[in-house]
Formats: sequence, structure tokens, C-alpha cells
Amino acid sequence: MPLEKVNLAEKLASFDEPFSPRIVGYYNDTKIQVAKTKGPFVWHSHPDTDDLFLVLAGRLRVELRDGEVELGEGELLVVPRGVEHRPVADDEAHVLLLELKGTPNTGDADAEPAPEVEI
Amino acid sequence: MPLEKVNLAEKLASFDEPFSPRIVGYYNDTKIQVAKTKGPFVWHSHPDTDDLFLVLAGRLRVELRDGEVELGEGELLVVPRGVEHRPVADDEAHVLLLELKGTPNTGDADAEPAPEVEI
Repeated sequence: MPLEKVNLAEKLASFDEPFSPRIVGYYNDTKIQVAKTKGPFVWHSHPDTDDLFLVLAGRLRVELRDGEVELGEGELLVVPRGVEHRPVADDEAHVLLLELKGTPNTGDADAEPAPEVEI
Repeated sequence: MPLEKVNLAEKLASFDEPFSPRIVGYYNDTKIQVAKTKGPFVWHSHPDTDDLFLVLAGRLRVELRDGEVELGEGELLVVPRGVEHRPVADDEAHVLLLELKGTPNTGDADAEPAPEVEI
């Protein structure tokens, strides 16, 4: 059987909840996820993994303790492990996210992580 | 110092050689690369890593020994480790590629790999 491709826009059209990443595949030990973002997320860091954000549509601001990075479509940011950050979208943004398997999306924050859902 | 974002279109505009991926960052032990593809590449597989292709512009066909997968913009494919494949672009395509650090882009093929170049 040939392998199955993933159409990111179709996956994103299938859900609405912000900050609730959906797993669309795996690359080695990494979850490939799509997420919608709207408003501010929680401040957090991931002690065991870098965090990769690639904006597919809209704009996403990643606040850091020493500044912020504004991402538009086709722009990506790697937040190194251990670096505190808070994603904020003033309007809805669509994002491709990479995180290590087993990593909660809230990292070390005292907040309920989103469930791991494959779509 | 705030982290630096990567604008994929700007990186892609900075070179022309097909099948010569440029490293634009690292995510854990993975090279984040952009590449232009034109024509057929070599048949190969990667014994130690999955291979992720995300098409940013154009179309890319990934031929497999038992079929093929045609990718358009915003579509991704993970080729599992050990699976033989040959990327072919009838016209130029722009692609985001993930490969493990230290992995030649030609995998196990008897062909000269592209040098690892960071941009």
C-alpha cells in the first residue's frame, strides 16, 4: 500500500478548539501536529524538547521573557528546550507544531494539557 | 536576545540548485531544511531516520516501489525509515525537509550527497 499523505488544511478544517493540537502523523520520535491558536496560551517551557512552530495561516506572536517574535505565514521558530514562552494570537492562526512524543502541550506549566488526539 | 525566526520563502529565494537542501535550523536532533526540487532525484532510503516532505510551493511526486504519492502545497508525507523512494518534480517545487543530523540526502544510494550547508 502506498503511504498516505496529509493535507494540512483539511486536517485544520476538521476542528475548532484553540490550543488543542491534533496529531496528524509521526516523524521518528516526534509528533507532527496542527493547531489553531486564538488569544493567549499559558507561559511554559519544555524541559526535554525543543518546540517548533510553523505558521500556516494568520499571525502568531511568541512571547519570551526577553522579547517576542512575531510570525507570519511561512515563518517558523524553534524555541529551545527549557526556554519559557507564551504563544499569543490576536486573531486565529493555523500552526504546524512539532513536539516530542509524550510531551504535554503545556510543558511545565501548572495547567491542564490538551489530550493527545490523532486525526 | 530574542530568538530568531526563519522566513522560508526568503531562504528559498537565496539559492537555485535543485536537490541541494539548505539547513535553516535544528529541532532536537533533526535538521530543518528547505530544498528546491526539479526533475527526478535518485532512488534511496534512509536506514536510520524517517524522511518528512512538506510542499511549500509547486507539486512533488514521491515514487515508491509499490506506488506513488502526489503532493501539492500544504501537503506532507512521512517516508518511514528503510522505505525506498524517489522524489520527482515535473516543475520546480519548494519543499520543507526534515532529516536526522548526519543523514546524507541521498540515503543509502550510490550517489554523491549534497554538502550540509547552513543558511
